[in-house]
Amino acid sequence: MMIIKIGGGAAINLQGIAQDLAQVNEPLVIVHGANALRDELAAKLGVEKRVLTSALGYASVFTDREMLEVMMMAYAGLRNKHLVELFQQNGINAVGLTGLDGRLIQGKRNRGIRVKENGKIKMKRDLSGKPRRVNKGLLELLLTNGFTPVITVPIVDENGFAVNSENDDIVALLQSVLHAEKVIQFIEAPGFLEKADDPDSLISAMNFGELEQREAQAKGRMKRKILALRKLSDFGPVEVILADGRVEHPLENALNGEGTLIR
Amino acid sequence: MMIIKIGGGAAINLQGIAQDLAQVNEPLVIVHGANALRDELAAKLGVEKRVLTSALGYASVFTDREMLEVMMMAYAGLRNKHLVELFQQNGINAVGLTGLDGRLIQGKRNRGIRVKENGKIKMKRDLSGKPRRVNKGLLELLLTNGFTPVITVPIVDENGFAVNSENDDIVALLQSVLHAEKVIQFIEAPGFLEKADDPDSLISAMNFGELEQREAQAKGRMKRKILALRKLSDFGPVEVILADGRVEHPLENALNGEGTLIR
Repeated sequence: MMIIKIGGGAAINLQGIAQDLAQVNEPLVIVHGANALRDELAAKLGVEKRVLTSALGYASVFTDREMLEVMMMAYAGLRNKHLVELFQQNGINAVGLTGLDGRLIQGKRNRGIRVKENGKIKMKRDLSGKPRRVNKGLLELLLTNGFTPVITVPIVDENGFAVNSENDDIVALLQSVLHAEKVIQFIEAPGFLEKADDPDSLISAMNFGELEQREAQAKGRMKRKILALRKLSDFGPVEVILADGRVEHPLENALNGEGTLIR
Repeated sequence: MMIIKIGGGAAINLQGIAQDLAQVNEPLVIVHGANALRDELAAKLGVEKRVLTSALGYASVFTDREMLEVMMMAYAGLRNKHLVELFQQNGINAVGLTGLDGRLIQGKRNRGIRVKENGKIKMKRDLSGKPRRVNKGLLELLLTNGFTPVITVPIVDENGFAVNSENDDIVALLQSVLHAEKVIQFIEAPGFLEKADDPDSLISAMNFGELEQREAQAKGRMKRKILALRKLSDFGPVEVILADGRVEHPLENALNGEGTLIR
Protein backbone atom coordinates (compact mmCIF):
# COMPACT_ATOMS: atom_id res chain seq x y z
CA MET A 1 0.00 0.00 0.00
CA MET A 2 1.24 3.45 -0.97
CA ILE A 3 -0.28 6.82 -0.26
CA ILE A 4 0.57 9.34 -2.95
CA LYS A 5 0.14 13.05 -2.36
CA ILE A 6 0.21 15.15 -5.50
CA GLY A 7 0.90 18.81 -4.79
CA GLY A 8 -1.23 21.50 -6.36
CA GLY A 9 1.57 23.42 -8.06
CA ALA A 10 1.27 24.40 -11.71
CA ALA A 11 4.47 22.62 -12.75
CA ILE A 12 3.63 19.13 -11.45
CA ASN A 13 3.83 16.55 -14.26
CA LEU A 14 0.44 14.85 -13.81
CA GLN A 15 0.79 12.74 -16.94
CA GLY A 16 4.20 11.46 -15.81
CA ILE A 17 2.86 10.59 -12.37
CA ALA A 18 -0.11 8.73 -13.90
CA GLN A 19 2.17 6.77 -16.23
CA ASP A 20 4.55 5.83 -13.42
CA LEU A 21 1.72 4.84 -11.05
CA ALA A 22 0.32 2.52 -13.73
CA GLN A 23 3.47 0.37 -13.24
CA VAL A 24 2.83 -0.09 -9.52
CA ASN A 25 1.47 -3.45 -8.44
CA GLU A 26 -0.01 -2.57 -5.06
CA PRO A 27 -3.06 -0.70 -3.79
CA LEU A 28 -2.84 3.07 -4.04
CA VAL A 29 -4.62 5.93 -2.37
CA ILE A 30 -4.11 9.33 -3.97
CA VAL A 31 -4.58 12.71 -2.31
CA HIS A 32 -4.14 15.87 -4.34
CA GLY A 33 -4.10 19.63 -4.07
CA ALA A 34 -4.92 22.32 -6.63
CA ASN A 35 -3.64 25.55 -5.10
CA ALA A 36 -2.29 26.98 -8.36
CA LEU A 37 -5.63 26.34 -10.09
CA ARG A 38 -7.51 27.79 -7.13
CA ASP A 39 -5.43 30.96 -7.17
CA GLU A 40 -5.80 31.35 -10.93
CA LEU A 41 -9.57 30.81 -10.77
CA ALA A 42 -10.04 33.10 -7.75
CA ALA A 43 -8.12 35.86 -9.53
CA LYS A 44 -10.21 35.45 -12.72
CA LEU A 45 -13.44 35.51 -10.72
CA GLY A 46 -12.34 38.45 -8.60
CA VAL A 47 -12.42 36.45 -5.35
CA GLU A 48 -9.83 37.80 -2.93
CA LYS A 49 -7.40 35.32 -1.41
CA ARG A 50 -6.50 36.14 2.20
CA VAL A 51 -3.71 34.25 3.94
CA LEU A 52 -3.87 34.32 7.71
CA THR A 53 -0.94 33.51 9.93
CA SER A 54 -1.82 32.21 13.38
CA ALA A 55 -0.19 33.51 16.51
CA LEU A 56 1.91 30.29 16.51
CA GLY A 57 3.19 31.08 13.01
CA TYR A 58 1.13 28.60 10.94
CA ALA A 59 -0.23 30.10 7.70
CA SER A 60 -3.49 29.14 5.98
CA VAL A 61 -5.92 30.48 3.39
CA PHE A 62 -9.02 32.14 4.88
CA THR A 63 -11.97 30.20 3.49
CA ASP A 64 -15.33 31.96 3.34
CA ARG A 65 -18.19 30.38 1.35
CA GLU A 66 -17.10 32.20 -1.81
CA MET A 67 -13.57 30.80 -1.55
CA LEU A 68 -14.93 27.36 -0.66
CA GLU A 69 -16.95 27.37 -3.88
CA VAL A 70 -13.85 28.35 -5.84
CA MET A 71 -12.14 25.37 -4.19
CA MET A 72 -15.00 23.03 -5.08
CA MET A 73 -14.49 24.09 -8.70
CA ALA A 74 -10.69 23.93 -8.71
CA TYR A 75 -10.03 20.91 -6.46
CA ALA A 76 -13.14 18.69 -6.73
CA GLY A 77 -14.01 19.82 -10.25
CA LEU A 78 -11.18 20.56 -12.61
CA ARG A 79 -8.12 19.00 -10.96
CA ASN A 80 -9.84 15.91 -9.56
CA LYS A 81 -11.58 15.05 -12.83
CA HIS A 82 -8.46 15.76 -14.88
CA LEU A 83 -6.48 13.39 -12.67
CA VAL A 84 -9.18 10.71 -12.85
CA GLU A 85 -9.17 11.11 -16.64
CA LEU A 86 -5.36 10.71 -16.82
CA PHE A 87 -5.44 7.69 -14.51
CA GLN A 88 -8.20 6.04 -16.53
CA GLN A 89 -6.21 6.60 -19.73
CA ASN A 90 -3.28 4.83 -18.09
CA GLY A 91 -5.35 1.88 -16.91
CA ILE A 92 -5.78 2.89 -13.27
CA ASN A 93 -9.44 2.56 -12.27
CA ALA A 94 -9.63 5.84 -10.39
CA VAL A 95 -12.63 7.14 -8.48
CA GLY A 96 -12.50 10.79 -7.47
CA LEU A 97 -13.89 11.68 -4.06
CA THR A 98 -13.97 14.61 -1.69
CA GLY A 99 -14.32 14.18 2.03
CA LEU A 100 -18.03 14.99 1.61
CA ASP A 101 -18.69 11.96 -0.58
CA GLY A 102 -19.95 9.13 1.59
CA ARG A 103 -18.60 11.20 4.51
CA LEU A 104 -15.19 9.85 3.55
CA ILE A 105 -13.26 12.42 5.60
CA GLN A 106 -15.11 13.72 8.63
CA GLY A 107 -13.70 16.61 10.55
CA LYS A 108 -14.30 19.20 13.17
CA ARG A 109 -14.69 22.80 12.17
CA ASN A 110 -11.98 25.10 13.48
CA ARG A 111 -13.16 27.43 16.22
CA GLY A 112 -11.10 30.20 14.74
CA ILE A 113 -7.59 31.28 13.94
CA ARG A 114 -5.89 33.56 16.43
CA VAL A 115 -4.32 36.30 14.37
CA LYS A 116 -2.50 39.51 15.25
CA GLU A 117 -4.11 42.63 13.79
CA ASN A 118 -2.68 46.02 14.70
CA GLY A 119 -0.95 44.47 17.66
CA LYS A 120 -4.15 42.85 19.01
CA ILE A 121 -4.97 39.12 19.03
CA LYS A 122 -8.27 38.47 17.25
CA MET A 123 -10.21 35.31 16.44
CA LYS A 124 -11.14 34.83 12.77
CA ARG A 125 -13.49 31.93 12.04
CA ASP A 126 -13.70 30.52 8.54
CA LEU A 127 -15.00 27.38 6.83
CA SER A 128 -12.03 25.18 7.65
CA GLY A 129 -11.55 22.20 9.88
CA LYS A 130 -9.32 19.38 11.03
CA PRO A 131 -9.88 15.92 9.56
CA ARG A 132 -10.62 13.49 12.39
CA ARG A 133 -12.24 10.30 11.09
CA VAL A 134 -12.08 8.29 7.87
CA ASN A 135 -15.04 6.31 6.54
CA LYS A 136 -12.82 3.24 6.42
CA GLY A 137 -15.70 1.10 5.13
CA LEU A 138 -16.04 3.13 1.95
CA LEU A 139 -12.29 3.26 1.44
CA GLU A 140 -11.95 -0.51 1.83
CA LEU A 141 -15.01 -1.16 -0.33
CA LEU A 142 -13.32 0.70 -3.18
CA LEU A 143 -9.84 -0.73 -2.61
CA THR A 144 -10.96 -4.36 -2.34
CA ASN A 145 -12.92 -3.96 -5.57
CA GLY A 146 -9.94 -2.70 -7.52
CA PHE A 147 -10.67 1.03 -7.48
CA THR A 148 -8.08 3.70 -6.72
CA PRO A 149 -9.51 6.53 -4.58
CA VAL A 150 -8.39 10.00 -5.68
CA ILE A 151 -9.18 12.24 -2.74
CA THR A 152 -9.30 15.97 -2.24
CA VAL A 153 -11.00 18.72 -0.22
CA PRO A 154 -13.53 19.76 0.97
CA ILE A 155 -14.20 17.50 3.94
CA VAL A 156 -17.44 17.31 5.93
CA ASP A 157 -17.69 18.89 9.39
CA GLU A 158 -19.64 17.69 12.44
CA ASN A 159 -22.79 19.47 11.19
CA GLY A 160 -22.63 18.14 7.63
CA PHE A 161 -21.14 21.29 6.16
CA ALA A 162 -18.34 21.40 3.61
CA VAL A 163 -15.15 22.80 5.06
CA ASN A 164 -11.66 23.28 3.74
CA SER A 165 -8.82 21.31 5.26
CA GLU A 166 -5.11 20.81 4.79
CA ASN A 167 -4.48 17.96 2.35
CA ASP A 168 -1.35 17.11 4.32
CA ASP A 169 -3.50 16.55 7.41
CA ILE A 170 -5.78 14.30 5.33
CA VAL A 171 -2.74 12.26 4.30
CA ALA A 172 -1.75 11.86 7.96
CA LEU A 173 -5.28 10.79 8.92
CA LEU A 174 -5.38 8.26 6.07
CA GLN A 175 -2.07 6.85 7.24
CA SER A 176 -3.55 6.33 10.71
CA VAL A 177 -5.99 3.78 9.24
CA LEU A 178 -4.09 2.49 6.18
CA HIS A 179 -0.58 2.06 7.63
CA ALA A 180 0.99 2.34 4.19
CA GLU A 181 4.64 1.28 3.87
CA LYS A 182 5.37 4.34 1.75
CA VAL A 183 3.97 7.86 1.62
CA ILE A 184 5.23 9.78 -1.40
CA GLN A 185 4.69 13.48 -1.78
CA PHE A 186 5.22 15.13 -5.15
CA ILE A 187 6.22 18.76 -4.81
CA GLU A 188 7.71 21.54 -6.94
CA ALA A 189 11.24 21.10 -5.59
CA PRO A 190 13.89 18.37 -5.73
CA GLY A 191 12.96 17.38 -2.17
CA PHE A 192 13.61 18.88 1.25
CA LEU A 193 16.03 21.75 0.81
CA GLU A 194 18.47 23.01 3.45
CA LYS A 195 17.99 26.48 1.98
CA ALA A 196 14.55 27.00 0.47
CA ASP A 197 15.84 28.81 -2.64
CA ASP A 198 18.84 26.62 -3.35
CA PRO A 199 18.03 23.37 -5.24
CA ASP A 200 21.63 22.20 -4.60
CA SER A 201 20.97 22.12 -0.86
CA LEU A 202 18.86 18.94 -1.11
CA ILE A 203 18.89 16.76 1.99
CA SER A 204 18.67 13.22 0.63
CA ALA A 205 17.79 11.51 3.90
CA MET A 206 16.75 12.37 7.43
CA ASN A 207 14.91 10.81 10.31
CA PHE A 208 11.73 12.03 11.98
CA GLY A 209 13.74 13.45 14.88
CA GLU A 210 15.66 15.73 12.53
CA LEU A 211 12.36 16.75 10.94
CA GLU A 212 11.17 18.02 14.31
CA GLN A 213 14.19 20.29 14.57
CA ARG A 214 13.50 21.65 11.08
CA GLU A 215 9.97 22.54 12.08
CA ALA A 216 11.21 25.04 14.62
CA GLN A 217 13.18 26.87 11.92
CA ALA A 218 10.46 26.79 9.24
CA LYS A 219 7.85 29.45 8.57
CA GLY A 220 4.36 29.85 7.09
CA ARG A 221 3.01 26.97 5.03
CA MET A 222 6.27 25.01 5.29
CA LYS A 223 5.90 24.89 9.07
CA ARG A 224 2.42 23.39 8.68
CA LYS A 225 3.66 20.92 6.12
CA ILE A 226 6.46 19.66 8.35
CA LEU A 227 4.08 19.26 11.28
CA ALA A 228 1.84 17.05 9.11
CA LEU A 229 4.83 15.07 7.82
CA ARG A 230 5.97 14.43 11.36
CA LYS A 231 2.59 13.00 12.31
CA LEU A 232 3.06 10.24 9.72
CA SER A 233 5.51 8.51 12.06
CA ASP A 234 2.87 8.18 14.80
CA PHE A 235 1.20 5.18 13.17
CA GLY A 236 4.01 2.66 12.83
CA PRO A 237 7.05 2.38 10.58
CA VAL A 238 6.78 4.29 7.32
CA GLU A 239 9.05 5.64 4.61
CA VAL A 240 8.16 9.13 3.48
CA ILE A 241 9.64 10.43 0.25
CA LEU A 242 9.48 14.10 -0.71
CA ALA A 243 10.05 13.96 -4.43
CA ASP A 244 10.21 16.26 -7.43
CA GLY A 245 6.86 16.17 -9.23
CA ARG A 246 8.10 18.21 -12.19
CA VAL A 247 10.38 15.61 -13.81
CA GLU A 248 9.64 13.14 -16.60
CA HIS A 249 9.33 10.15 -14.26
CA PRO A 250 8.39 11.46 -10.83
CA LEU A 251 7.62 8.11 -9.15
CA GLU A 252 10.40 6.13 -10.81
CA ASN A 253 12.91 8.73 -9.65
CA ALA A 254 11.47 8.79 -6.14
CA LEU A 255 11.67 5.00 -5.83
CA ASN A 256 15.23 5.09 -7.21
CA GLY A 257 16.48 7.22 -4.36
CA GLU A 258 16.07 10.77 -5.61
CA GLY A 259 14.33 13.31 -3.42
CA THR A 260 14.34 13.23 0.38
CA LEU A 261 13.77 9.99 2.25
CA ILE A 262 12.44 10.42 5.77
CA ARG A 263 12.17 7.49 8.17
CA MET B 1 -35.94 2.23 -6.99
CA MET B 2 -36.30 5.79 -8.25
CA ILE B 3 -34.12 7.72 -10.65
CA ILE B 4 -34.19 11.44 -9.95
CA LYS B 5 -32.99 13.94 -12.52
CA ILE B 6 -32.37 17.42 -11.14
CA GLY B 7 -32.28 20.05 -13.86
CA GLY B 8 -29.50 22.60 -13.94
CA GLY B 9 -31.68 25.71 -13.85
CA ALA B 10 -30.90 28.49 -11.41
CA ALA B 11 -34.36 28.40 -9.75
CA ILE B 12 -34.39 24.71 -8.79
CA ASN B 13 -34.96 24.30 -5.02
CA LEU B 14 -32.08 21.97 -4.19
CA GLN B 15 -32.67 22.15 -0.44
CA GLY B 16 -36.37 21.25 -0.90
CA ILE B 17 -35.48 18.31 -3.11
CA ALA B 18 -32.90 17.05 -0.59
CA GLN B 19 -35.40 17.33 2.29
CA ASP B 20 -38.11 15.51 0.34
CA LEU B 21 -35.75 12.76 -0.83
CA ALA B 22 -34.71 12.14 2.78
CA GLN B 23 -38.27 10.86 3.38
CA VAL B 24 -38.02 8.23 0.64
CA ASN B 25 -37.54 4.65 1.76
CA GLU B 26 -36.15 3.08 -1.37
CA PRO B 27 -32.85 3.16 -3.26
CA LEU B 28 -32.21 6.35 -5.23
CA VAL B 29 -29.96 7.25 -8.10
CA ILE B 30 -29.59 10.96 -8.77
CA VAL B 31 -28.49 12.59 -12.01
CA HIS B 32 -28.07 16.35 -12.19
CA GLY B 33 -27.29 19.18 -14.55
CA ALA B 34 -25.72 22.58 -13.93
CA ASN B 35 -26.33 24.54 -17.12
CA ALA B 36 -27.11 27.84 -15.36
CA LEU B 37 -23.90 27.57 -13.33
CA ARG B 38 -21.94 26.62 -16.44
CA ASP B 39 -23.26 29.60 -18.39
CA GLU B 40 -22.54 31.97 -15.50
CA LEU B 41 -19.01 30.62 -15.05
CA ALA B 42 -18.26 30.61 -18.79
CA ALA B 43 -19.39 34.24 -19.04
CA LYS B 44 -17.23 35.26 -16.05
CA LEU B 45 -14.21 33.45 -17.49
CA GLY B 46 -14.77 34.81 -20.99
CA VAL B 47 -15.36 31.37 -22.50
CA GLU B 48 -17.75 31.65 -25.43
CA LYS B 49 -20.78 29.33 -25.47
CA ARG B 50 -21.73 28.13 -28.93
CA VAL B 51 -24.97 26.26 -29.46
CA LEU B 52 -25.07 24.14 -32.59
CA THR B 53 -28.26 22.88 -34.16
CA SER B 54 -27.93 19.70 -36.17
CA ALA B 55 -29.46 19.30 -39.62
CA LEU B 56 -32.21 17.23 -37.92
CA GLY B 57 -33.03 20.12 -35.59
CA TYR B 58 -31.43 18.89 -32.31
CA ALA B 59 -29.55 21.62 -30.43
CA SER B 60 -26.47 21.12 -28.24
CA VAL B 61 -23.62 23.11 -26.71
CA PHE B 62 -20.35 22.88 -28.66
CA THR B 63 -17.82 21.47 -26.21
CA ASP B 64 -14.15 22.19 -26.84
CA ARG B 65 -11.59 21.45 -24.12
CA GLU B 66 -12.02 24.93 -22.65
CA MET B 67 -15.78 24.47 -22.31
CA LEU B 68 -15.28 20.93 -20.98
CA GLU B 69 -13.08 22.34 -18.21
CA VAL B 70 -15.76 24.92 -17.38
CA MET B 71 -18.19 21.99 -17.14
CA MET B 72 -15.87 20.02 -14.88
CA MET B 73 -15.87 23.03 -12.56
CA ALA B 74 -19.61 23.76 -12.73
CA TYR B 75 -21.08 20.24 -12.89
CA ALA B 76 -18.52 17.95 -11.19
CA GLY B 77 -17.17 20.66 -8.91
CA LEU B 78 -19.60 23.22 -7.60
CA ARG B 79 -23.04 21.72 -8.27
CA ASN B 80 -22.15 18.10 -7.53
CA LYS B 81 -20.42 18.90 -4.24
CA HIS B 82 -23.14 21.32 -3.18
CA LEU B 83 -25.75 18.62 -3.78
CA VAL B 84 -23.71 16.01 -1.91
CA GLU B 85 -23.38 18.48 0.96
CA LEU B 86 -27.16 19.11 1.06
CA PHE B 87 -27.92 15.38 0.90
CA GLN B 88 -25.46 14.63 3.69
CA GLN B 89 -27.04 17.33 5.85
CA ASN B 90 -30.41 15.65 5.32
CA GLY B 91 -29.13 12.19 6.17
CA ILE B 92 -28.73 10.81 2.64
CA ASN B 93 -25.32 9.16 2.28
CA ALA B 94 -24.56 10.65 -1.13
CA VAL B 95 -21.47 9.92 -3.21
CA GLY B 96 -20.84 12.26 -6.13
CA LEU B 97 -19.55 10.70 -9.32
CA THR B 98 -18.99 11.65 -12.92
CA GLY B 99 -19.00 9.11 -15.72
CA LEU B 100 -15.19 9.17 -15.56
CA ASP B 101 -15.06 7.87 -11.99
CA GLY B 102 -14.62 4.12 -12.06
CA ARG B 103 -15.67 4.41 -15.75
CA LEU B 104 -19.22 4.63 -14.43
CA ILE B 105 -20.68 5.92 -17.70
CA GLN B 106 -18.81 4.82 -20.79
CA GLY B 107 -19.68 6.32 -24.12
CA LYS B 108 -18.69 6.74 -27.70
CA ARG B 109 -17.45 10.08 -28.91
CA ASN B 110 -19.66 11.74 -31.48
CA ARG B 111 -18.19 11.76 -34.98
CA GLY B 112 -19.43 15.27 -35.48
CA ILE B 113 -22.54 17.35 -35.67
CA ARG B 114 -23.88 18.12 -39.13
CA VAL B 115 -24.64 21.81 -39.14
CA LYS B 116 -25.76 24.23 -41.81
CA GLU B 117 -23.42 27.18 -42.29
CA ASN B 118 -24.13 29.66 -45.07
CA GLY B 119 -26.37 27.11 -46.72
CA LYS B 120 -23.71 24.35 -46.69
CA ILE B 121 -23.74 21.21 -44.53
CA LYS B 122 -20.54 20.99 -42.45
CA MET B 123 -19.29 18.51 -39.83
CA LYS B 124 -18.24 20.02 -36.49
CA ARG B 125 -16.56 17.61 -34.08
CA ASP B 126 -16.42 18.45 -30.40
CA LEU B 127 -15.74 16.66 -27.11
CA SER B 128 -19.17 15.11 -26.74
CA GLY B 129 -20.46 11.59 -26.91
CA LYS B 130 -23.34 9.22 -26.41
CA PRO B 131 -23.46 7.18 -23.18
CA ARG B 132 -23.47 3.48 -24.07
CA ARG B 133 -22.51 1.37 -21.06
CA VAL B 134 -22.90 1.63 -17.29
CA ASN B 135 -20.37 0.16 -14.86
CA LYS B 136 -23.20 -1.69 -13.17
CA GLY B 137 -20.79 -3.31 -10.69
CA LEU B 138 -19.77 0.03 -9.22
CA LEU B 139 -23.37 1.27 -9.14
CA GLU B 140 -24.56 -1.87 -7.32
CA LEU B 141 -21.57 -1.81 -4.98
CA LEU B 142 -22.61 1.66 -3.84
CA LEU B 143 -26.36 0.96 -3.73
CA THR B 144 -26.08 -2.30 -1.80
CA ASN B 145 -23.86 -0.57 0.75
CA GLY B 146 -26.34 2.20 1.41
CA PHE B 147 -24.80 4.95 -0.68
CA THR B 148 -26.79 7.21 -3.01
CA PRO B 149 -24.92 7.90 -6.28
CA VAL B 150 -25.15 11.52 -7.44
CA ILE B 151 -24.09 11.44 -11.06
CA THR B 152 -23.18 14.08 -13.60
CA VAL B 153 -21.06 14.74 -16.70
CA PRO B 154 -18.46 14.30 -18.08
CA ILE B 155 -18.52 10.68 -19.17
CA VAL B 156 -15.55 8.66 -20.47
CA ASP B 157 -15.20 7.90 -24.18
CA GLU B 158 -13.78 4.77 -25.85
CA ASN B 159 -10.24 6.18 -25.61
CA GLY B 160 -10.45 7.20 -21.96
CA PHE B 161 -11.07 10.88 -22.64
CA ALA B 162 -13.60 13.03 -20.83
CA VAL B 163 -16.50 14.02 -23.05
CA ASN B 164 -19.69 15.93 -22.49
CA SER B 165 -22.99 14.13 -22.82
CA GLU B 166 -26.68 14.86 -22.40
CA ASN B 167 -27.74 14.12 -18.84
CA ASP B 168 -31.13 13.01 -20.18
CA ASP B 169 -29.35 10.34 -22.24
CA ILE B 170 -27.51 9.23 -19.10
CA VAL B 171 -30.85 8.87 -17.31
CA ALA B 172 -32.15 6.70 -20.15
CA LEU B 173 -29.02 4.52 -20.07
CA LEU B 174 -29.29 4.13 -16.29
CA GLN B 175 -32.91 3.08 -16.68
CA SER B 176 -31.82 0.35 -19.12
CA VAL B 177 -29.90 -1.36 -16.28
CA LEU B 178 -31.84 -0.22 -13.20
CA HIS B 179 -35.45 -0.61 -14.38
CA ALA B 180 -36.67 1.93 -11.82
CA GLU B 181 -40.43 2.07 -11.22
CA LYS B 182 -40.30 5.86 -11.29
CA VAL B 183 -38.16 8.41 -13.08
CA ILE B 184 -38.74 11.93 -11.80
CA GLN B 185 -37.36 14.97 -13.56
CA PHE B 186 -37.27 18.31 -11.77
CA ILE B 187 -37.47 21.20 -14.20
CA GLU B 188 -38.14 24.94 -14.14
CA ALA B 189 -41.77 24.61 -15.23
CA PRO B 190 -44.95 23.12 -13.76
CA GLY B 191 -44.51 20.12 -16.07
CA PHE B 192 -45.04 19.48 -19.74
CA LEU B 193 -46.74 22.56 -21.20
CA GLU B 194 -49.01 22.56 -24.24
CA LYS B 195 -47.67 26.05 -24.98
CA ALA B 196 -44.09 26.59 -23.79
CA ASP B 197 -44.75 30.05 -22.35
CA ASP B 198 -48.11 29.38 -20.73
CA PRO B 199 -47.93 27.71 -17.29
CA ASP B 200 -51.71 27.20 -17.41
CA SER B 201 -51.34 24.88 -20.39
CA LEU B 202 -49.98 22.05 -18.23
CA ILE B 203 -50.72 18.56 -19.52
CA SER B 204 -51.17 16.48 -16.39
CA ALA B 205 -50.93 13.06 -18.02
CA MET B 206 -49.99 11.50 -21.32
CA ASN B 207 -48.75 8.21 -22.67
CA PHE B 208 -45.50 7.51 -24.49
CA GLY B 209 -47.34 7.43 -27.81
CA GLU B 210 -48.53 10.99 -27.34
CA LEU B 211 -44.99 11.99 -26.38
CA GLU B 212 -43.79 10.80 -29.78
CA GLN B 213 -46.26 13.11 -31.50
CA ARG B 214 -45.02 16.03 -29.38
CA GLU B 215 -41.46 15.38 -30.44
CA ALA B 216 -42.28 16.19 -34.05
CA GLN B 217 -43.62 19.61 -33.01
CA ALA B 218 -40.80 20.48 -30.58
CA LYS B 219 -37.63 22.40 -31.36
CA GLY B 220 -34.05 22.77 -30.13
CA ARG B 221 -33.20 21.37 -26.70
CA MET B 222 -36.83 20.38 -26.01
CA LYS B 223 -36.76 18.07 -29.02
CA ARG B 224 -33.69 16.33 -27.62
CA LYS B 225 -35.26 16.10 -24.18
CA ILE B 226 -38.42 14.45 -25.48
CA LEU B 227 -36.39 11.95 -27.49
CA ALA B 228 -34.55 10.95 -24.31
CA LEU B 229 -37.82 10.76 -22.33
CA ARG B 230 -39.32 8.48 -24.95
CA LYS B 231 -36.40 6.08 -24.66
CA LEU B 232 -37.30 5.47 -21.01
CA SER B 233 -40.23 3.31 -22.12
CA ASP B 234 -37.93 0.91 -23.99
CA PHE B 235 -36.87 -0.90 -20.82
CA GLY B 236 -40.13 -2.06 -19.31
CA PRO B 237 -42.99 -0.33 -17.53
CA VAL B 238 -42.07 2.97 -15.92
CA GLU B 239 -43.78 6.09 -14.62
CA VAL B 240 -42.07 9.29 -15.63
CA ILE B 241 -42.99 12.50 -13.84
CA LEU B 242 -41.96 15.91 -15.14
CA ALA B 243 -42.28 18.06 -12.06
CA ASP B 244 -41.71 21.60 -10.91
CA GLY B 245 -38.35 21.82 -9.16
CA ARG B 246 -38.89 25.39 -7.99
CA VAL B 247 -41.56 24.78 -5.34
CA GLU B 248 -41.21 24.23 -1.58
CA HIS B 249 -41.75 20.46 -1.78
CA PRO B 250 -40.76 19.35 -5.27
CA LEU B 251 -40.88 15.57 -4.67
CA GLU B 252 -43.91 15.57 -2.38
CA ASN B 253 -45.86 17.51 -5.00
CA ALA B 254 -44.70 15.25 -7.80
CA LEU B 255 -45.75 12.11 -5.90
CA ASN B 256 -49.11 13.76 -5.08
CA GLY B 257 -50.03 14.11 -8.73
CA GLU B 258 -48.74 17.53 -9.69
CA GLY B 259 -46.65 17.92 -12.82
CA THR B 260 -46.96 15.68 -15.87
CA LEU B 261 -47.24 11.92 -15.50
CA ILE B 262 -46.10 9.96 -18.55
CA ARG B 263 -46.66 6.21 -18.83
